[in-house]
Amino acid sequence: MGITGPSESGPSTPSGSHGLDVEEATGDGAVKERTSSSSKLMFAPWQSAVDEGFWHRLASFKLETQRLAEHPVAISGFFAPCSHPQIPSHLQLMEESLPADPGGQSTVSFAVQGNRNKCPVPGTLYNSNTLEGFTGLDTPSLLKSTTQQIWEDIQSGRAEETSNLLNRFLLISFADLKKWSFSYWFAFPAIVITPPVTKSSCRPVSEIFDEKESSAIREACSEWRGTPATASSSFFLLHFTSEGAVIARPIKDWKLAHEEGGTVIAAFYDPCNISTNPGWPLRNLLALGVARWEVNELRVLCYREKRGFIDLQLSLIVDVQLPELPDWKAPGFVPKSVGWELNSRGKARPRIVHLAATMDPQRAANEAADLNLKLMRWRLLPSLDLPTLSTTKCLLLGAGTLGCQVARGLLAWGIRHITFVDYGKVAMSNPCRQSLYNVEDCLSGGRLKVDAAADSLKRIIPGVEASGVFMSIPMPGHSVSPGELDQVLADSSRLKALVDEHDVVFLLTDTRESRWLPTLLCAEANKVAINAALGFDTYLVMRHGAGPVGIQGESSVTTEAEGSVQARSGRLGCYFCNDVVAPLDSTANRTLDQQCTVTRPGLAPIAAALAVELAVNLLHHPLRINAPADPAVSITDTTAEPLGILPHQVRGFVAHFSQMVVVGSAFDKCTACSSTVVEEFRRRGMEFVIEVLNRPNYLEDLTGLTEMVAATQDMSLDWDDEGEFADEV
Amino acid sequence: MGITGPSESGPSTPSGSHGLDVEEATGDGAVKERTSSSSKLMFAPWQSAVDEGFWHRLASFKLETQRLAEHPVAISGFFAPCSHPQIPSHLQLMEESLPADPGGQSTVSFAVQGNRNKCPVPGTLYNSNTLEGFTGLDTPSLLKSTTQQIWEDIQSGRAEETSNLLNRFLLISFADLKKWSFSYWFAFPAIVITPPVTKSSCRPVSEIFDEKESSAIREACSEWRGTPATASSSFFLLHFTSEGAVIARPIKDWKLAHEEGGTVIAAFYDPCNISTNPGWPLRNLLALGVARWEVNELRVLCYREKRGFIDLQLSLIVDVQLPELPDWKAPGFVPKSVGWELNSRGKARPRIVHLAATMDPQRAANEAADLNLKLMRWRLLPSLDLPTLSTTKCLLLGAGTLGCQVARGLLAWGIRHITFVDYGKVAMSNPCRQSLYNVEDCLSGGRLKVDAAADSLKRIIPGVEASGVFMSIPMPGHSVSPGELDQVLADSSRLKALVDEHDVVFLLTDTRESRWLPTLLCAEANKVAINAALGFDTYLVMRHGAGPVGIQGESSVTTEAEGSVQARSGRLGCYFCNDVVAPLDSTANRTLDQQCTVTRPGLAPIAAALAVELAVNLLHHPLRINAPADPAVSITDTTAEPLGILPHQVRGFVAHFSQMVVVGSAFDKCTACSSTVVEEFRRRGMEFVIEVLNRPNYLEDLTGLTEMVAATQDMSLDWDDEGEFADEV
Repeated sequence: MGITGPSESGPSTPSGSHGLDVEEATGDGAVKERTSSSSKLMFAPWQSAVDEGFWHRLASFKLETQRLAEHPVAISGFFAPCSHPQIPSHLQLMEESLPADPGGQSTVSFAVQGNRNKCPVPGTLYNSNTLEGFTGLDTPSLLKSTTQQIWEDIQSGRAEETSNLLNRFLLISFADLKKWSFSYWFAFPAIVITPPVTKSSCRPVSEIFDEKESSAIREACSEWRGTPATASSSFFLLHFTSEGAVIARPIKDWKLAHEEGGTVIAAFYDPCNISTNPGWPLRNLLALGVARWEVNELRVLCYREKRGFIDLQLSLIVDVQLPELPDWKAPGFVPKSVGWELNSRGKARPRIVHLAATMDPQRAANEAADLNLKLMRWRLLPSLDLPTLSTTKCLLLGAGTLGCQVARGLLAWGIRHITFVDYGKVAMSNPCRQSLYNVEDCLSGGRLKVDAAADSLKRIIPGVEASGVFMSIPMPGHSVSPGELDQVLADSSRLKALVDEHDVVFLLTDTRESRWLPTLLCAEANKVAINAALGFDTYLVMRHGAGPVGIQGESSVTTEAEGSVQARSGRLGCYFCNDVVAPLDSTANRTLDQQCTVTRPGLAPIAAALAVELAVNLLHHPLRINAPADPAVSITDTTAEPLGILPHQVRGFVAHFSQMVVVGSAFDKCTACSSTVVEEFRRRGMEFVIEVLNRPNYLEDLTGLTEMVAATQDMSLDWDDEGEFADEV
Repeated sequence: MGITGPSESGPSTPSGSHGLDVEEATGDGAVKERTSSSSKLMFAPWQSAVDEGFWHRLASFKLETQRLAEHPVAISGFFAPCSHPQIPSHLQLMEESLPADPGGQSTVSFAVQGNRNKCPVPGTLYNSNTLEGFTGLDTPSLLKSTTQQIWEDIQSGRAEETSNLLNRFLLISFADLKKWSFSYWFAFPAIVITPPVTKSSCRPVSEIFDEKESSAIREACSEWRGTPATASSSFFLLHFTSEGAVIARPIKDWKLAHEEGGTVIAAFYDPCNISTNPGWPLRNLLALGVARWEVNELRVLCYREKRGFIDLQLSLIVDVQLPELPDWKAPGFVPKSVGWELNSRGKARPRIVHLAATMDPQRAANEAADLNLKLMRWRLLPSLDLPTLSTTKCLLLGAGTLGCQVARGLLAWGIRHITFVDYGKVAMSNPCRQSLYNVEDCLSGGRLKVDAAADSLKRIIPGVEASGVFMSIPMPGHSVSPGELDQVLADSSRLKALVDEHDVVFLLTDTRESRWLPTLLCAEANKVAINAALGFDTYLVMRHGAGPVGIQGESSVTTEAEGSVQARSGRLGCYFCNDVVAPLDSTANRTLDQQCTVTRPGLAPIAAALAVELAVNLLHHPLRINAPADPAVSITDTTAEPLGILPHQVRGFVAHFSQMVVVGSAFDKCTACSSTVVEEFRRRGMEFVIEVLNRPNYLEDLTGLTEMVAATQDMSLDWDDEGEFADEV
């Protein structure tokens, strides 16, 4: 007779038909009349019922906890004495069947008692790393070793102390988390008694006992089921005392009860609701009867409930004859067992469930997005700090070629908070280089880039927190008319607030001067600033050094900043530290090729990728913004850090297919990050900013650059090729 | 009185109202009764009417021909004697007003005669590079110099030979091709006669002449207009001969006609349809009358048409009194002029037209996509060969992380033919790294990657020819069962056909063995193969060497291939040239982290960008696939080629932020590109392929690798770190 379980495609659809199990190979299938005086006893097998929640928990357990390990995992199944005719013999697995996520809520342990409708059954999960591993598992051995555990629990008396151990089960699985499909197979090991157990009677409780007795039985069972300590203990005794009382007692009291006199019947929570046969749990109880109680006859109550009380019509009293099995007493003997579940076509084969189709697409997408990163932690990068990355807030100044590509890179690294700042609309020439936009975004004059970019990110990962701020960044040399003053003040304050609200600021705008205020604000707030700039076939990617926090001791190249961890080479420089002129309006009088991104198309993806890698490395460094700059290392060197070195600047030359690591120190006359400038900004606030916008020479006077330039007119500067970086639109 | 022209937002909407022009500053505005015996003559000015086609042509002319140059360009306007009351005095500019694209169809030249409804008017375009340049143009000087040209043409008699020269006009413009907006301003220079010309009469032809005379006039005009040589000559004479005939003659016949006797009236194609005033062209004709014919009185026919014939009611006969102007005879004298067109609000100001909103989005997108590339040719990369790139057919094997990014890079470089080959569907974990997919592509089990990728490219550039082939690539070690044989043979043949149909093949698949057959097919067909492979934090980007075309003389490292242009270092190697084992099934028994793209997210964008840059460099090399490998150069060296060096392999190490250029020669025992293998494939065809799939050792035996490995068991190989490249999913 076949066993019907969940169908292959649905994880938890209970089937309407039932099956009975006879010993594996015999199976004559004849279910004898229940009144027949003596016939072979047959049992309704368990049917596994797995909630989707279980698979989701298994997925995250595998990804985050188990990873490459394949050791067996203790899990729990749950069942109840059948109170629902539609779901007979179901052993249910749900989210809490698995260990909790590390740091998550605690899950139920096998020992947890008390929920009468969720009796825990101890199980063992063997989750393989590969499909080949799964299909190659030695299932007979696994069944045998679990049977041995049950047998030892019976021998040792542990099964009488903790009776649910008799229901021990096995689950083997392979979780394909790329496709969200799960191959699995349950085994419910049942010790085989040969010659088989026969029954002399199998009738409803109500037919065996009179009303008074029945009432006493109901009373005793209610107490057992109503007491937290025993409610979920699925095997017990009913002791009909010499005094005529009926008491429910733990099965370990078998001998004691007999000694006290009266009669004792064994009882078990029967998940089955077939009126002719007991359920599967009885099998190992009978084995215990043979091996431990050494009885030849046993009366058993198949306890079944309706509305919380014993159902006297549905619950059965089975009288069985047990064979004598002297070889069971041989030392080291382990009885045979059966138990691998049949699939929906009645074959002893694994099942497969595909969750991708039924998963909420949002959830599926969000989980899938992290898949590659979680897999990285398995082997190659166990120290990858995903919680930090997923909570780091990134501000992207510029949503152009670089901004789009940086945002994509951040998503791929698990960053989930991205804010764009841009003042443009999507133009027809943008989509082929700016990877977050399509032609549709260009219609009717074009959407705001910040909106289109944020929406695009949500189409990649629905769970991302992406937003955009449509504003222009105030720029030195772009002087402010009285009519514009309020707007520029509002923009400056807004930008300051944005810098304060975020953890990492990416400078990806299209002009040199638009980087000045963000650089100053980051220096003032001591925020991580990552800068990327493109020439025609060259790129610069750098992190700015820490701000001049103490506003003293700061200096250029040689002098050591007091107490700074970047002391070795002084504070690291910013984008402006190599300049001897303040930023100016560079947008006026630009020809079309100067206005547009005239760079080799390969540059932006490379520079953006490196900017993101640099940021991720920095976020993994314990000193963060204060981390010293690693020098260039030979490619034959292995790096100490799993993510590699943390340089200050990377300069690339696509025409040479080459790239180099550079370190530059902070410059004490820097127009953006020097303590003079930061101090003045702190003192005068936005008034200072407005003065800079209107009068760029002011910065040169303030920092002493004017004097210095006059004094060193003839000196050639250290590396003054900065000008070749034409920035990016 | 104001002049109404095209509105500021629409390029060619004719206004319903008309204006008249009096001398610039005087303007008392009184339009005197046409019967008034003597009053100042006033003229209806030209109204510019620019077709959208003109602006599109200007855009491509600027981008592709003019580029950074700002020299004046000869253009043509067109008009007809007013035959449509709704579009009076329109001087029209259309696509053919500008010089043809180089290599495109020829455009009308000013000299082209014959189209009576498209009388050409010579103009000069000053197109500025910047808005600042445009607004800074010295408009008085420009007008003055054009007036001087007209004046010289009058003086020299050239204006009588080619009368349309009297209508000379000026156009200044700035084309913002990023926003598709055009700032422009027309001037129609008219020589100012002071004291002003007065009219003694201005009446319809039908009121001046009787029916017979009118009929003769009609006849004469019809002949003039019907003769190709004169049809578009917009100034002419009507000679009323002594014999009573009426003959239309060129204006250069003025003296001759008078000598022949009778009366002569001057005529001009009048674009104006106002019944009270002549149109603008009369002004310079009157100047010619004063300066060249030295007349004090002149009768003029304002020739206006209806249905192809003179309209005797609408056409005017104007009798004018011309002042004596002795100073006009002074040497070097140039008369004053007026003529800058007024805008729709009656101000002498430039206009601006925004085409982005009205352009066909498909066309706009396609044109915009090329904008950055065309701009590159202006200055930085004049040798950029866009025609080659736009016709190069690229085959992308793999539409995963690398495939998506390579396709984007190719689009950005102007490649317009892309075919994807892939056998996968878009999974939920793909969008955050595979930049052509969104969450929508993952629903309902996922779209085929090849379809989703091709559609995505069309959303970036509608004009791209992108398609996808859903097929798996036959792989060594993945043995073929009899039932699969037909499919595998079909796949192999299909792949061969695809390689043959394309110019460049990108190898971007997720396993080593899936690169074998494409490598062999490229070697056999001598097709450019570009290969990119990713490790966890390392990447390899390479081009395969030429195939062993001659099937002889090929060898490894030291021996020089006969006649090969790669002779210096022998034929360049392929991806398999460093292997001493044939490719094997590497997909079996892979754990989840081995199945998925467990690479640093930054790798794929970098490797893909470099693969595209390498391909583009190769396509610009005259030797193409036979180009020798450039060695690494110092970053301080400048490269001879504007696109930089053409290396063989680039290896990158993201953990070190470094990258190096490597050269490797072809290996005579290579399992994919050696002449032995290519020869065997040519001899046995797909039978050979099937044998390789089923028996990978076969390749090792065939090439002699088996022997070699046995002989050199102890030798350490030159660089055997290839294994670290885990490929990409």
